[in-house]
Amino acid sequence: MSGPIHSDPTNLTAAAAAEAIREGRLSSGELVAACLDRIAARDAQVQAWEYLDADLALAQAGEADAAIRRGDHLGLLHGVPIGIKDIFDTFDLPTANGSPIFDGRRPERDAACVAALRAAGAVILGKTVTTELALLTPARTRNPHNLEHTPGGSSAGSAAAVADHMVPAALGSQTAGSIIRPASFCGVYGFKPTLGLVPRAGVLMQSHTLDTVGVYGRSVEDLALITDCMTAFDPEDAASFRRARPGLVGTARARPPIPPRLAFVKPPPWTDADPDMKVAFAELVGRFGDRIVELDLPRLADVVEWQRIVQLAENAHYYGPLLDEAPQHISPGLAQRLNEGRAVDAQEYLRAITGREPAYRALAAALKTFSAILTPAAMGPAPRGLGATGSPIMNGLWTYLGMPAVSLPLLQVRGMPVGVQLVGQRHDDARLLRTARWLMAEVAG
Amino acid sequence: MSGPIHSDPTNLTAAAAAEAIREGRLSSGELVAACLDRIAARDAQVQAWEYLDADLALAQAGEADAAIRRGDHLGLLHGVPIGIKDIFDTFDLPTANGSPIFDGRRPERDAACVAALRAAGAVILGKTVTTELALLTPARTRNPHNLEHTPGGSSAGSAAAVADHMVPAALGSQTAGSIIRPASFCGVYGFKPTLGLVPRAGVLMQSHTLDTVGVYGRSVEDLALITDCMTAFDPEDAASFRRARPGLVGTARARPPIPPRLAFVKPPPWTDADPDMKVAFAELVGRFGDRIVELDLPRLADVVEWQRIVQLAENAHYYGPLLDEAPQHISPGLAQRLNEGRAVDAQEYLRAITGREPAYRALAAALKTFSAILTPAAMGPAPRGLGATGSPIMNGLWTYLGMPAVSLPLLQVRGMPVGVQLVGQRHDDARLLRTARWLMAEVAG
Repeated sequence: MSGPIHSDPTNLTAAAAAEAIREGRLSSGELVAACLDRIAARDAQVQAWEYLDADLALAQAGEADAAIRRGDHLGLLHGVPIGIKDIFDTFDLPTANGSPIFDGRRPERDAACVAALRAAGAVILGKTVTTELALLTPARTRNPHNLEHTPGGSSAGSAAAVADHMVPAALGSQTAGSIIRPASFCGVYGFKPTLGLVPRAGVLMQSHTLDTVGVYGRSVEDLALITDCMTAFDPEDAASFRRARPGLVGTARARPPIPPRLAFVKPPPWTDADPDMKVAFAELVGRFGDRIVELDLPRLADVVEWQRIVQLAENAHYYGPLLDEAPQHISPGLAQRLNEGRAVDAQEYLRAITGREPAYRALAAALKTFSAILTPAAMGPAPRGLGATGSPIMNGLWTYLGMPAVSLPLLQVRGMPVGVQLVGQRHDDARLLRTARWLMAEVAG
Repeated sequence: MSGPIHSDPTNLTAAAAAEAIREGRLSSGELVAACLDRIAARDAQVQAWEYLDADLALAQAGEADAAIRRGDHLGLLHGVPIGIKDIFDTFDLPTANGSPIFDGRRPERDAACVAALRAAGAVILGKTVTTELALLTPARTRNPHNLEHTPGGSSAGSAAAVADHMVPAALGSQTAGSIIRPASFCGVYGFKPTLGLVPRAGVLMQSHTLDTVGVYGRSVEDLALITDCMTAFDPEDAASFRRARPGLVGTARARPPIPPRLAFVKPPPWTDADPDMKVAFAELVGRFGDRIVELDLPRLADVVEWQRIVQLAENAHYYGPLLDEAPQHISPGLAQRLNEGRAVDAQEYLRAITGREPAYRALAAALKTFSAILTPAAMGPAPRGLGATGSPIMNGLWTYLGMPAVSLPLLQVRGMPVGVQLVGQRHDDARLLRTARWLMAEVAG
């Protein structure tokens, strides 16, 4: 691209928008106005946004454009609008965590990752709808591909907003399958980095062992670019790690030095997965010959169960006090879940916690000669109906193991999108994204 | 020192012995033979040793002396005998963990820290008696200062052997108060480093949150020297940390750049502590004027309780299978403890686990202007009788917080030794040992 942007700027990826703004071919004001127009036209149906202040968004864009006119040094996301799931604190918009308990809550400061996005020049467009406390009770958001279908959850609004071109990128979070599953259902790119790569300060905590911050975008490059702006070491976050954070975007843009080899993994829930999706996967895998080979990994059924136990118990720890103080504001489904979590005994919890590292090591050893795992991002396309958000069971095990995962909008099943999930080894985020870009290009080519 | 060693070499510190051996004033063979003589003369009473193979020890010493004659490059502990608590695996001696369940067990490889000592040139003199599975059921060891008194536990044999001049130094481990309390009762120097400084691979696990490897010696320098040989990063140990390990011994030998200031802390159990010991502490503290000031720290009662809950639950996790498989070989006291641990629910455990970091941060902030905490190492001198090992309640809270602690043989109460415990901030091990040396010198001077 080199001339001015004539077509609709809401079709741009975040990376392309950043470039166009930096090069003066597009102003942040134009892009943000186009996003607000799109939201005005569509959000009555999609219902992706919880809090939106058009003046505030346009004011941020105006400042970004003024900085360009002054010739300021620009950050990687200068002028690019980003949506923020409403469990991330923002100093200038409310943060209600998808629960009436927090209605009107106004945190004093941004979550660390939101502050980092602002520091990189991003415009915080608004807050996107989350399910109740980022768990399983659905919110009002609909799937832009078919309004009668769920967008998934818990990062429902972020996935739907990106899918519907209301914003080029958005933040999500995943404890079981809250980023990857909505990405799959909504047909967008989603990325859950290695556990601890992005600090969680200022994000609603539902499980210190599992909660992971991640991103939606309209290309693999978007995922790399936005994550790069948020990686940091936080000594107060138990999942954070003292380790250099090499840039993702440089590696993600590169060609693999040798052709990747992928391990096609069918975890135990595969048995009950959508038959049409299985056919789609067989076709995809078949096309790659010995570049994608089926691999049996040890103990995956245990890992699925351990994730469930740990999430249940930690949910009850973090949300139990809310159930005690405001039971009238907790949905019956969540109340039941919290009581189930309270019944977990410490021995069950410890078996799950102590199983994790040995299981990961065995699995990492089995993956030595592979670039990534290829596996479904969900059990099938987004289910019809808005009463449930679909099962996260294809995601929870990788979340539990702390492995980075990406969902790529590669397949269609009965007219709805289905994501291909690639899962990498811990700390191998950059290579995972490079592999993802290679796969997209191979399938397109 | 410069001439040959004429006096009894069993009086030497480990550091002095290492120097004398390096300089040719003493042979490892002479020192090991003297230790074996002392053991032969005294161990029928003290009962500090579980496994001892005199020929094996003398053969190691012979190799050390041959290396010196060849002019080999020597490690920091070349030729120095060290006792090893019998929960650390050794490839050439049995490791029975203080339980008939493991009678005759012969591990194939050394624990990581034992291997590190051998790499530094140490002679592994033998295995010292531990209580049952390093918990509270006493073993046969007696206190060398008065055979009718307990030496404490669980590192009973290591503390008694060093106190009785059977070996200059020995390894111990602490989950509540298993290093510091026996050091106090037996009148030797004991050191529990920052959690995770020394890897635990090959050491009996009773609690991944708490277990810490440490050292007994006959001077502060000994503690620094031996710990320096064992520090390492182990990615498979959940408590280990990726962080440079600056040498302890250099700092420990230095004079503080400014006079230290200590915080005299009376944790909640102080109320029930030995009245004579309280008087001794008052006298010690009084002597230092405003260099030692009393400080109230927040939430210590919670921390005491959290340590108890976590140890109970994790003990049941790691030892519960032994109770199921071999109940006849578990003492009634331990069986009761394991059943109590099994009754802990996950919410109690999570409250304890998630309380730790905020409590530590609050406490570290309160300690900013102090070099270390000064506090009793035990509730009083070693209790009379061999039916119990005394209370670890003055230690468990610091262990839980992962803070380094040292016991210094500074006080006497009713003719028995009582340790002064100094506790430092995490990762401040070197400065803690420097402060300890300063305190010893001030009291002596």
